[in-house]
Parts: sequence; structure tokens; C-alpha cells
Amino acid sequence: MAAPEVGIGIVGYGMMAKAHSYAYTVAPVMRTLRHRPRLRMISGRDKEKVSRAAAAYGFESWTASWRDLLDRRDVDIVDICTPPGTHAEIASAAAVAGKAVICEKPLAVSFAQADSAAEAVRQAGVLNAVGFNYRRLPAVSLMKRMIDDGAVGAVRLVRAVWLSDEFVDPSIPFDWRFDRSMGATTIADLGSHLIDMATWMAGGIAEVSAQSATFVRRRSNQDVTVDDASSALVRFETGALGVFEMARVAVRRPCDFTIEVNGDRGTLVFEYPRLNELRFGDGADRPGLYGMRTIRAEHESHPYARNWWPVGQGVGYGASFVNHLGALLERYPEGPWEPDFAQGAAVQAVCEAIERSAAERRWVRVSEITAGVGIRP
Amino acid sequence: MAAPEVGIGIVGYGMMAKAHSYAYTVAPVMRTLRHRPRLRMISGRDKEKVSRAAAAYGFESWTASWRDLLDRRDVDIVDICTPPGTHAEIASAAAVAGKAVICEKPLAVSFAQADSAAEAVRQAGVLNAVGFNYRRLPAVSLMKRMIDDGAVGAVRLVRAVWLSDEFVDPSIPFDWRFDRSMGATTIADLGSHLIDMATWMAGGIAEVSAQSATFVRRRSNQDVTVDDASSALVRFETGALGVFEMARVAVRRPCDFTIEVNGDRGTLVFEYPRLNELRFGDGADRPGLYGMRTIRAEHESHPYARNWWPVGQGVGYGASFVNHLGALLERYPEGPWEPDFAQGAAVQAVCEAIERSAAERRWVRVSEITAGVGIRP
Amino acid sequence: MAAPEVGIGIVGYGMMAKAHSYAYTVAPVMRTLRHRPRLRMISGRDKEKVSRAAAAYGFESWTASWRDLLDRRDVDIVDICTPPGTHAEIASAAAVAGKAVICEKPLAVSFAQADSAAEAVRQAGVLNAVGFNYRRLPAVSLMKRMIDDGAVGAVRLVRAVWLSDEFVDPSIPFDWRFDRSMGATTIADLGSHLIDMATWMAGGIAEVSAQSATFVRRRSNQDVTVDDASSALVRFETGALGVFEMARVAVRRPCDFTIEVNGDRGTLVFEYPRLNELRFGDGADRPGLYGMRTIRAEHESHPYARNWWPVGQGVGYGASFVNHLGALLERYPEGPWEPDFAQGAAVQAVCEAIERSAAERRWVRVSEITAGVGIRP
Amino acid sequence: MAAPEVGIGIVGYGMMAKAHSYAYTVAPVMRTLRHRPRLRMISGRDKEKVSRAAAAYGFESWTASWRDLLDRRDVDIVDICTPPGTHAEIASAAAVAGKAVICEKPLAVSFAQADSAAEAVRQAGVLNAVGFNYRRLPAVSLMKRMIDDGAVGAVRLVRAVWLSDEFVDPSIPFDWRFDRSMGATTIADLGSHLIDMATWMAGGIAEVSAQSATFVRRRSNQDVTVDDASSALVRFETGALGVFEMARVAVRRPCDFTIEVNGDRGTLVFEYPRLNELRFGDGADRPGLYGMRTIRAEHESHPYARNWWPVGQGVGYGASFVNHLGALLERYPEGPWEPDFAQGAAVQAVCEAIERSAAERRWVRVSEITAGVGIRP
Repeated sequence: MAAPEVGIGIVGYGMMAKAHSYAYTVAPVMRTLRHRPRLRMISGRDKEKVSRAAAAYGFESWTASWRDLLDRRDVDIVDICTPPGTHAEIASAAAVAGKAVICEKPLAVSFAQADSAAEAVRQAGVLNAVGFNYRRLPAVSLMKRMIDDGAVGAVRLVRAVWLSDEFVDPSIPFDWRFDRSMGATTIADLGSHLIDMATWMAGGIAEVSAQSATFVRRRSNQDVTVDDASSALVRFETGALGVFEMARVAVRRPCDFTIEVNGDRGTLVFEYPRLNELRFGDGADRPGLYGMRTIRAEHESHPYARNWWPVGQGVGYGASFVNHLGALLERYPEGPWEPDFAQGAAVQAVCEAIERSAAERRWVRVSEITAGVGIRP
Repeated sequence: MAAPEVGIGIVGYGMMAKAHSYAYTVAPVMRTLRHRPRLRMISGRDKEKVSRAAAAYGFESWTASWRDLLDRRDVDIVDICTPPGTHAEIASAAAVAGKAVICEKPLAVSFAQADSAAEAVRQAGVLNAVGFNYRRLPAVSLMKRMIDDGAVGAVRLVRAVWLSDEFVDPSIPFDWRFDRSMGATTIADLGSHLIDMATWMAGGIAEVSAQSATFVRRRSNQDVTVDDASSALVRFETGALGVFEMARVAVRRPCDFTIEVNGDRGTLVFEYPRLNELRFGDGADRPGLYGMRTIRAEHESHPYARNWWPVGQGVGYGASFVNHLGALLERYPEGPWEPDFAQGAAVQAVCEAIERSAAERRWVRVSEITAGVGIRP
Repeated sequence: MAAPEVGIGIVGYGMMAKAHSYAYTVAPVMRTLRHRPRLRMISGRDKEKVSRAAAAYGFESWTASWRDLLDRRDVDIVDICTPPGTHAEIASAAAVAGKAVICEKPLAVSFAQADSAAEAVRQAGVLNAVGFNYRRLPAVSLMKRMIDDGAVGAVRLVRAVWLSDEFVDPSIPFDWRFDRSMGATTIADLGSHLIDMATWMAGGIAEVSAQSATFVRRRSNQDVTVDDASSALVRFETGALGVFEMARVAVRRPCDFTIEVNGDRGTLVFEYPRLNELRFGDGADRPGLYGMRTIRAEHESHPYARNWWPVGQGVGYGASFVNHLGALLERYPEGPWEPDFAQGAAVQAVCEAIERSAAERRWVRVSEITAGVGIRP
Repeated sequence: MAAPEVGIGIVGYGMMAKAHSYAYTVAPVMRTLRHRPRLRMISGRDKEKVSRAAAAYGFESWTASWRDLLDRRDVDIVDICTPPGTHAEIASAAAVAGKAVICEKPLAVSFAQADSAAEAVRQAGVLNAVGFNYRRLPAVSLMKRMIDDGAVGAVRLVRAVWLSDEFVDPSIPFDWRFDRSMGATTIADLGSHLIDMATWMAGGIAEVSAQSATFVRRRSNQDVTVDDASSALVRFETGALGVFEMARVAVRRPCDFTIEVNGDRGTLVFEYPRLNELRFGDGADRPGLYGMRTIRAEHESHPYARNWWPVGQGVGYGASFVNHLGALLERYPEGPWEPDFAQGAAVQAVCEAIERSAAERRWVRVSEITAGVGIRP
């Protein structure tokens, strides 16, 4: 007997929509799912492009208006892959329409927006998830599991850096990515992943001190209203110290992120350019073996590994989406889903605290952002 | 207008069948294909397992007898993912039935078998290809292109090593992999990929000197009739020297292969654990930059890169299948396909020359193997 | 005709004294020096240990009182390798005695002390240098030279991290290293090197925001008065952003530092565990070579390389001292020496600004530290 | 009381003489030695160059004739750093003169020569050693110790590769390095180190099959009579398989060697560009840690580590000489020294077997070379 189907509608047709479509297509092949996703409808304002995307990605239909997806009874999950400035509105409307909602990160372009979306899904009682796909990389999930299992002891230091060169060329014309109200700050675009992973592993962030710079201030005669690069000191609620940096102006750094955790008994290091590996320095090792292990994070005992290839073969970027969306489908419709909109809003609060700290040149408590709004990290 | 469909039948339901199913499913999402593959039927002797595989991989039907695939008019391509000892018979029958044939590597367990399969597809005039998927890794394809473009000058030295630990545990019970008539020698299992890549890049191999060992000679009270490890010196037709090594008894080497080419003007190095990278030492660089570049082989100008993700994100093992089968589908039905059975047989001739050399402890010309049979590397 | 000799007196007999003795011994063998150093006297309070050190390191005599060195007419250079809390007093006395002074880093345990030492050498008109040996690593010097030559364009981002596990074991008993008035903060112990290198490459630091933690607060029933770990955001005078981190509680990180600079046209990365290499991402490369070079920083055109081995052989930690002290000897007695006490004090001012910022939880301008004292970074 | 002195005379003034002088100078500083080496005399045919070398390296005197060293009563050890074709004659004469003899590798340019030198030192009863310095790298010594301690179990596979670009430029004029009777084959120049290390770790080599090529056959209108590159299959006496490759025509490979050993329980990998590290794959690790450790081979429990720097700081090429010559001095005058001339001759026999195998295109037993001569590997 075939698995029952769950209808998927994607809003947007760009790279993220392609990645999600890839994942919905692949997930049932790589793992046993109780529900088989069916790509019902994709929406986008450019009719030619969305119709071509529909054909390429395997959607049954397309529309120029995302609201059409909400009217479709055969669409169970609305998956939002549009620019960040549009997320909250679409997500809230989808929730009201009773759809389960998956939203790409960052959840919004402000904490207030993110919080309203989180409130909307809560009110509607619908399943909700944010696209923090990188935590679903096998090695990152293994890192989390090992921390939970005590491999490093009490976490003391967290450092996380994300470097890309997306904005390095000053001749790139202005588009929505450079517009604070529609795109995301570099803090939120790159940093939201780091914040999600770091808080997942080490708990909530209490306060931040940050700095930002926009090196190319004008493009196509318009003001660039987002940062090119930011960095932040963070204090976790546990007292652990963190250092985060995110930049879109690092030449020949395509999309390299690193996250390292030092506890009182061990060290774990993940570097994206070697995404199938996790380095582990175990303080309990006998001294003659001083150094770190490079764990090939594909052993059948590792997270998600059984769904993929034999150890040593390696997965790529796409696997993070397959693992993420596959895990959500696996828990459909009873839930819970994670990371959910509450986590998305909590991450947004940290992003906004970083932005405010950089602007006001002072330590900012994350609770200053969330105060009076009802969401707690 | 939807792309016309091409019917796929897969023989076998193991890991390779999963990888091929993944690829047929993914290829249309990642690139524009003129034909959309449709998974018509999968075959396998174990009814329970094949029926489960059919459901998981998305096949419309299944059968316990591979000959059923040949009778299906809606199966255009027969894709053989069974143990090597069965390849030649199935491939020849599929050719006679007028099907295009894709066969996993190695093409057979002897040159004579491989040659008969190559002759069968030639006689039948059907498209034919061997599953040398690793040459479709973006970085390996880039390596080939750079060599063709003269980046290293005249090739002088080739070294290629493949290390796995598949056979290291002496308690693994006997199965077909340890049976020379059904499985493949380590030479053919791992080495056939190396030989395919090396000859693709550096031309035909003229002669070999080799050694082999089987360290665990009995399993489950049966004689192991394949090698655990082999190594070979090779002389290319150009006069270049090569060194190949393949072993399935290298502890904590899951599936690591390396191929390096030194020409009179440059060096290129590929290492599978960093499969999205290609190292390039350019003799023409100014001396102050002495060293090698690490090319992130995902730039949009690189082979297959446009079908995948932005530079720096990385693909995994699966991409080699998507790129390979996608390229074949792209040239269906007019062809030509590559690497074809003639190349598969040529690789087999080198494998057999290595095996004979190790047995007879002397240099063996590849032409000794192919003489009188009509296939030339 | 033999080179004239210059008499060396070292204060202290620990690891640093060993490294300096090694360097004085090796420098004349590895490079032509106009003066041959002669190890005249070593001082230390523990008579047994200092006498053994004198024999091992090749000193002609030893003393239990460092003031004896100042009285020796055959000691031309006093080289201070004692705990930081003693540096300023010894250095000032040596200057008054008319000796050239080399002082290990950090120059002092406060800016006021450092400034007084800098003033003392200025008043005495003696040559003076601080032991920032890491900038003399060939690859670090090459990095500086390439930045000066415009390889990365205008520097925008600097990140520098130093991780050790020296303090990770809570059972290490209290000693001077844990005493703020005698040892150095982690900021000054590890960070002073980072600050020296970063300001050498990217110019002065204007202001900082920092955080610190001491995880093991008591040892041997005494209060630990230095930090275990600190991190700082820095703003360079040019407007470039920096992030520094230094920790002595990172398990299985023996002494790993990394410094990366991103300019508007390129990226340079140095990682100490691969100390003979420098990675260079050149934005002007043709796109098909996207990635970074790994320069083997031992080519004869590279700094200090001619004094050492053929390219590829590699130097170690010791070479930084040989290169540093050798370069100072080369300019003896006419000078100038660099980095000098003024730079040592400037670095100290940044360290102190970081310490104050962490204590007061606010951005601190480095000029707040130096104001009214007459030293400018 | 000062350590007694041992008089050193070096024959030759090139790079090797510099490295040995460095080592004699450094060794007493880095470790306690019972004898302090004193650089008595250096010889070389070019009076200007040798006199300059004497001054630079710190020798008390120099001579244009190496025989003068043998007459000096204050020269206890004769250290031969000349081209290989001169080694046997000088070494034999030094032995007859009753000197302890240290000879750079390879011991000679033929097995017969090497054997005669070994016989000479045996007859004279003098201490003797060959300059296989790389086995004295801490990580290589650790590798040997771990193999002896059973870390990898029974050795099955050994692979060793040495790549340099010394001969890649065809415009390099003819000199003694290209002359078979004076310089060394690439087999002996690079390969002798590999053979020394491999046999030290895995026991004697029984037989070989090899190939060679000389790509640039003429330089300065003279025939090049050595190989540019060679490779060899080897069979150890234990039945283990080996693959060796050595080339001086690998572009942008300055001097990179790798040696890997796979046993039935583990894997060890050393790569010269990371000379302070040793990778260890332990088959007994729990599966969830699948992968290899990177041991920082500088822990105080590791060979030679106590003589150097704190873990993580790293040593370079020079340390191999310091460790090697330091260990010999430590055992002077009672001995024994290792590796001695007998090992040097045994290595030479393997080199010659490789050369003969390449010439005669057949497997050659090492005993064919040594038969009737009285030296056994």
C-alpha cells in the first residue's frame, strides 16, 4: 500500500525553492516516509519564470499569486521561499488558512514581524518550522548530540564565523538584498544560522555587544541599507562566552562557516568546507594521543547517515534540506516540528539585539528586544 | 509542454539501484532535460525486498525476473545494478531486446565477458554506457578539462590510490563479493574507476606489472578467491608512468581515492575526501606564489556546476550519479553515450592484465589480453 | 677576519631563555651577521637551575642577581626573559646602565609600566626591542609584505584567534601566571602577539569592546586574578573591523593561532599549525580558478627564506626567534630596532583597553588609556 | 664541570654541511649531551667557499683537502657531506684512520661501493652511521614506536611517495647530480629515505618490480644518466606489499613525502608538509568515532619532544638533524650507532634492485644484489 500523500505548495521559485523541491523529491527515495510529498503548486510573480520552474521542479500547477495556494484544499503545507520582507505576511495568512507552514530563514526582517508570525501560528494551532537547514547536516547534528551526551563537558566558549563574498563586487546593482525592509541584514542572513546552531547547542543568549560596517554604501545610486559585515560578542545565559562574525565581503570565501565549541572537557569543531567531518578533541584521551580526531560523520550510527550512502562517500548541501524537510514530513501531521517559529523569533531577537548594539554602541540584553512582546528565546 | 518520457527499468535493488533511482529522480529537478525519466519497473530475486525497494524508489512496478523488463515496451533503458558476474548476460540480452543499456562497473568479471557484452551492443546498435560515475564529479571533470586545455602540459606521471576497509574484518562471512566468478577483484571493483579516470585523462595503458595479496584467505569455511589488495606499475602508450593501488583492507579508510597527474608544466591533484576541490600547481606562476591553488570546483564555469548550488555549498557522492545519468538522458536517444561498453571492456582488459601480471610475476602487455578479440583500449 | 662580537646577557632561564639562547647560537650559522653574539652571562634566582642553564645554553658565566649583568662591560645587550611583572623595572635599569635592551612580551603588566619602560629607553637613547617573535615567521612576514604591496587592497576585516589549553586543568596549582601583578592576562599573554601582528598589518586600533571570563576562580586556595579567556571587537583607525579572541582553556588546542585579513581585493589567511604556508585568495584571478592558493612561504624570494632550507622543508617555532634576534643583531649597534618599546607600549594600551572594556562593559577608546602619558599607538 | 668535547670534521660545505653544522651547534643547547661537539675543521676543494663556510658555520679551521681531516688528532668524528660518488672512498679512508664516521645518504652510488664502505668500518671497528635524518623527525619516530607497540597490528600495506620538482626545469645545466657515477639516481636520492623508513618500520624487502624514466635526456649537450622518476612494487619479507614512488619532476611539489602503513588493526599516515602531525586510524575505536586522529607529535611523551618546544609550537626540517646527530653524540664513543653502514648498504641493495628491475623489466630479488657479498638487509 502506497504512503498517503501530503500536498506541498511553495511560494517563490528561486534557489531556495529549487533546494526545497529537490528535497521533497529526494526525501522519499532516501528514507521511508509515512507521507509522500506531492508538489501541488508553486507561486511567483513572474509568470514565465514560475511556469518554467513548475515544469523543472515537477509541480502540477503554478500561479502568479501566492494567495491561490491558500485556497487549494490539496495543499497541506505552505513552504515560503521568498525574500525575508515578505515572510511574516505570507506565513500569517497561511496559518489563518489552516496550513502547516514552513518558512525560510530569517523568519522576518524584524523581531516584531517575526513575533507576529509566531503568534499567528500559535493562534491558528498549525505546525510551523523555520528553514534552519544547516543544523540538519549530519556532522552538525552529531555535534549537537555529542554536546548533549557530555562529550565536551560544560560549554565555556563558542565561536562561529560565516564568510561569503556575495557583496564584495561594488558593481553589483542594487536589488532587494540591499534593502533593509525586504532583504536581510548580514546579521540575519548569515548570522541567523549561526545563532540557531549556537543556541541549539549551548542554550539561550542573554546579551550582545556588536559592530557593523557597510563598505559599499551606494549601489545604482541608491543607499544600501544593510550591513556588509558585523561581529558580536555574546554572553550565553549559562555564562559561556561567544564570538560571532558574519560578512558578505570576504574575497574568495564562497560560503564558509565554522563553529567551534570548547567545554571544560573537550572541543568540537565543524568547518563547512569539510562538511562530512567533525573534529573532536577529547580531554580524556591518554596524553600520548594528544590532538583531535576527525570523525567521518557518516557512520551508520550518526544522525541521518542511514538514509544516505556508505561511510566515506559524502553528502553535499542538498542533504541538509532533505534531512530537514524529511524530518518535518516524518512528523506530519501530529508534530511537533522543530526548529519552530518560536525559535525563529528568538533568533530574530538576537539578530535585532546585535543590530541595535552596533547602532547604539553598547551591550544590549536580548530581553530588551523581546520585552513586552511575549516571546522568550 | 511537458518533456517526453523515457522508461527506465533497473535490474537489482541494492545500494547502486538506490543511487541510480536517486539520480533519475533528481536529474530533472537540477537541470533541464529533454526527456523526463520514468521509473517503470525494478527487478530482483527477493520479492519482499524488491517490492519494498520499488515503493521506496518510486517505481511503478516490480518483478522477480529481470527478463520481464526486456518484454516491457515502456522500458526504454535497462540499467543493470547487479553483481558483476551477472552483468554480461543481462546486458547482452537487453541489447538483443533493443534496449539502451546502462551497466554498473565493472562491466564484467573477465575481459572475454566484457568483450562479448561490447560486441552484443555493437551488433544490436543500441546505446550503451558503463557506470563510471566518478569521472562525473565536477572536480574530476574539471581535472580532465584542464588537462585537455594544457594546464599541466604533457602528462608524465599519474598516481592513483583507492583505499577502503570493506574487507578488513575477518569475521565478515563469505558472500558473492569474495567469489571471483560473481563479485569483482579489488582490481576491478576499485581499480576500474581509477583506470577509467586515468586513461580518460592520460590515454591508453600499454603494459603493467602488478602484485596482489589476499590476507584473509578463508571466510565461513570457504576459499576467498578475490584479492584484498593489489598494486600496479603502468606504462601509458605515451610513455608516461603510472602507479595504481587499490585495497579493501585499509583500516579507517572508508572509501578514499586520490588521483594526481604531473605534467611537464603543472600538477593536478584530486582527493575524494575533499570532493568539491581540485588542487592545481601551475609551473607558470610567478615564483613568489610558489605552491598550489585549491580550486573550489563549483564555479558556474565548471563542469555540471550550473545544475547545482552556488559556489562553496558543495555536492556529495549522489551528484556523480545525477551528472552521469543526466548526461546520458540528455543524449537519449541519438547518442553517443560515454563511457561506453568499449571503454568498459578496455578497462577490463587492463584489470585482467594486472591480475595476470600479479599471477605470473612479469610485465604484461594489455594487448596480450585483447589480442584476437577485436577490442582495443 | 672574524666578525666582531656582541656580548649577550639574559635575565631568566626558563623556556624563553632557552629559545633566545637557541636563536643566538643558530643565527650566525644560518645567516651572515656582522656581529657574532657571545653568551656572556645568564641570571636567575635559583642558583642550581641557573648554573645548569648556563652550561646547557652555552653561557660563560651566571649570577643569581640580574643587576650583575648591568655591571658587566662585556654585556652589550640585556635580554629579559622573566615574568612580565618584572620587565619594566629590569628594562629601565638596563637602559640607565646604557645597555641595548630586548624584552620578552608583553612589555609589562600595565600600560603605565610599559610606558615608563619606553620612556626610560628613550631617555637613555639605547636600542630597544620587544619579543614579538611571531611576526618574524616567514609566512607572517610574507603576509605583511603582501598587504603592503596591495595584494588584498584596502583592509576591511581582520580576525585573529589564539587558543591554548594551558589553564584548562583546574588542578594546576597557583603560580605567578595566575597572579595579575606578576603574570599577564590572557589578553596580554596571547593577545599581545595578535595585536602586534594585526596593527603591523592593518594600522592602529582606535577602540574596543570586550568580554572576559575566569572559569577556574581559585587555585591552591588563592584567587586567580587573570582571565582564562577574552574576546574583543576592535575598530581600526582606518575604519576596518576586527575580532580578536584569546583563550587558555580550549581543550586540545595547544597553541593554535589564526590571523585572516579580508581586503576589498583579496584575502590572506595564516594558521599556525601550518606555519610554513600562507593562503591567498586573489580577487583578480580568473573566475575559473576560484579558490585560494596555498603559498609555501619558503621560496627564496620570501622573507628570511634564504637563511633557511630549500623550499618545502619547513621551519619551526625556533626560526621565529632566530629571524627576530638575527635581524636585531644585524642592525646592532646603529639601529633602529623593531618592534620597539613604543610598539610594545602601544600594544599594552590596547590590551589594557580590552581589559577595561570587559570590566566596564562599554566601548573603550585606546586613547583613554594613553591620554596624558605621551605614548601614541 | 663542563662536558668533554668531541672534535668534528666535516667534508663538504654545501647545504648538507650547513644542516649538520646547525645540528652540532644546536644539539647541546636543546638537550643535555655528555659530549659537547667542537667544530674543528671543514674541507672543500673551493678555497674561497670553504673558508667562508668555515667562518659562517663556526669551524676553527678549514682545508682544501679532506685527507687533512684524517691527520688531525683533535678530529674524532668525520662527517661526510659530499656528492654520493665520493662517499665510499672518504668513508673507508676515515675508518682506516680510526675515525668515527657519519656519512650522508645514500651511502654510495652502488651496492658494491656501499658494501666496501661497510666492510671498511667493520674491519676498522669504528662507529659508523648514515644520514637518514628523516627517521628522526618526532612524528616519524613516533610512527615507528607505535608500530612496534602494536598500534596497527600486523603490517600489510606500505605506501611511500616522494615528490620534488628539482629536475623539472629542462634548462637546468648539467652538473654532477645528473651524472650516474657521482650523483645519485632519484631512486637513491629520494628513495633511500623511503626505503630506510619503510624497512625500519616493516622489516626487510625481499623483492621488487620497478620502472624508471628520464624525461629530459640531455642537458648542456651531455647525456643525463640518472632517472627523473621511478616507481616500484615491493614485497616485504613478511609478505606485506609495498608501493614506492620517487620523482624529481613533479611541478610545485617541493619536497613532499608521505608514508602510510596499514596493518590488520590500524592505519598510520605521515605527510611531510604537516611534519609535526601523525594521523592514526585505530580499528579498535568505537564505531561512532569512525575516522582518524591527528596526533600532535610534540607531546612530552613523544620521541625527542622534551628537547624541543611546548606541544603545538612545531619543529622544522632542522630538528631532524639535531635529533639525529644529537643521538649519535649521546652514544659516543661506546655506541652502537644507528642506522649504521650495514643499514646504509642494505638500503643501497634495494635501490640497486629497483634500478636493475627497471632496466631488466622483471622482478628482482634483493638477494641477487647482495649475494656473495656478505651483507644482508
